[in-house]
Amino acid sequence: MSFSQLLSEVIRKKGNPVLVGLDPRFDSLPMPCRLDNVADSFERFCKEVIDIVAPLVPTVKPQAAFFEQYGAAGMTALQNVIRYAKQQGLLVIFDGKRNDIGSTAEAYAAGILGSESAWGADALTVSPYLGDDSIEPFVETAVQRNAGIYVLVKTSNIGGKMLQDLVADGKPIYRRVAEYVEQLAQRTEGSVGAVVGATWAEQLAELRQVMPSAPLLIPGYGAQGGTAKDVAKAFYPDGLGALINNSRGLIFAHLNEPFKSQFGESHWQDAVCAAAKQMIGELHTALTTGIEA
Amino acid sequence: MSFSQLLSEVIRKKGNPVLVGLDPRFDSLPMPCRLDNVADSFERFCKEVIDIVAPLVPTVKPQAAFFEQYGAAGMTALQNVIRYAKQQGLLVIFDGKRNDIGSTAEAYAAGILGSESAWGADALTVSPYLGDDSIEPFVETAVQRNAGIYVLVKTSNIGGKMLQDLVADGKPIYRRVAEYVEQLAQRTEGSVGAVVGATWAEQLAELRQVMPSAPLLIPGYGAQGGTAKDVAKAFYPDGLGALINNSRGLIFAHLNEPFKSQFGESHWQDAVCAAAKQMIGELHTALTTGIEA
Repeated sequence: MSFSQLLSEVIRKKGNPVLVGLDPRFDSLPMPCRLDNVADSFERFCKEVIDIVAPLVPTVKPQAAFFEQYGAAGMTALQNVIRYAKQQGLLVIFDGKRNDIGSTAEAYAAGILGSESAWGADALTVSPYLGDDSIEPFVETAVQRNAGIYVLVKTSNIGGKMLQDLVADGKPIYRRVAEYVEQLAQRTEGSVGAVVGATWAEQLAELRQVMPSAPLLIPGYGAQGGTAKDVAKAFYPDGLGALINNSRGLIFAHLNEPFKSQFGESHWQDAVCAAAKQMIGELHTALTTGIEA
Repeated sequence: MSFSQLLSEVIRKKGNPVLVGLDPRFDSLPMPCRLDNVADSFERFCKEVIDIVAPLVPTVKPQAAFFEQYGAAGMTALQNVIRYAKQQGLLVIFDGKRNDIGSTAEAYAAGILGSESAWGADALTVSPYLGDDSIEPFVETAVQRNAGIYVLVKTSNIGGKMLQDLVADGKPIYRRVAEYVEQLAQRTEGSVGAVVGATWAEQLAELRQVMPSAPLLIPGYGAQGGTAKDVAKAFYPDGLGALINNSRGLIFAHLNEPFKSQFGESHWQDAVCAAAKQMIGELHTALTTGIEA
């Protein structure tokens, strides 16, 4: 089953397009998850989050940076977290924004993508600055292994405008990258998608039009300011076509109102569950049609 | 001592600007380094290479992709290789081409840069597609820890042209990134540098002019086609200002003529040594002035 089919299947099964970001930060962890060392704490916390969200959502996205920050021990925790998430039936996107030239890109792709790889991820985020011959090895490996890649097109941060919004021959750079992604998405039947920030509602609608064949990964929901209404235009009429990421707003829900007062740190798991259900509800309301089973 | 001062010191001490790329590939390893598992083989091989090159050159650049390919075990090997290289007096550049938005970029920077970090690297390669607010956390951490970053400006691969050579308001994208890097280099007194491929001799001369304050990291020498004459324009009159990277051409010298016939696999260490000395000689000849001690 191709990545695109796998993605549609898990979204339909869970009935929502929520992508839970696993971005552990030691200072935000609930006290019971703070163990003697940070890497073990991250693994414990993420596994508990996975237990809570696995019955509710289709996908999780561990952010490699937070694990890599703690060296090889952190990367061991990441590997265990990915394996555990897969065992719980979640589709896993390795958020590494990796890339390099030819044979080095091959090494990243071979190591990260597919269930036979060392990391075992279903998909990987990829940066486009190095151009098409740096993206191709990821595309080839993704197709061979029924995995996917999401190319950065229009990122959620303000500073993304610096290069992405520059206009060359009448088109912004992000749009040129989007047109390239659309070609790859067509060629691979949806194994190549794009990252487009929820913080740019206007461009999100434009980019859905430019990339009708590409699955979208939409960060910037919640803590960064993107709303369910902002992201509604990313979806196809059947409710498929996009994953909506929320990290801090879900995994650290116990730190934010109303969940903080309602559950507190001692019931942080209930806060994660309630926040996930609230986000699912917000998306259901904003999408004009539900996801067809 | 700032990164820039540290860099100048090691280059002067060794009398050359060679950057040995540690890009281990199992199929290219000499037989005595092929152990039961790949990660251990990489560690063994890289440590042997370090033993050979530490007396000759100032810097090494482990390529994270080749280690990450083998999961957490590979990353453990990478951590051990970095530590060993530092112990042997080498300055270590972590080639990860990392980047992400704000707080995630902080995590990469905090984990990788500086002797107090988990990875303990002196510098890191960083991708610019996410813009200035994604680069700033790396710059701040680098300055605080006397470490450096090298921002991708003009990469050595053909496909790099796809985005980097697009012209916006009369200037190619790579030049805009270069102007931004120059500002950062000035502000940080050389803690921020640029990656510029040896394969683009004309742009290399242009970019040295655009970035007079930035240390350059020049890949593409040797196997990719860049020559000593091509890279000569990257240097200041005192012979400082650039590191010239060679990976396969040095560490797998025993696979290429004339070193293959001369030394063969059984004396692969001598091949590495001879290839490094040959590259040092080529650069000495091409640079109009030597490096002033």
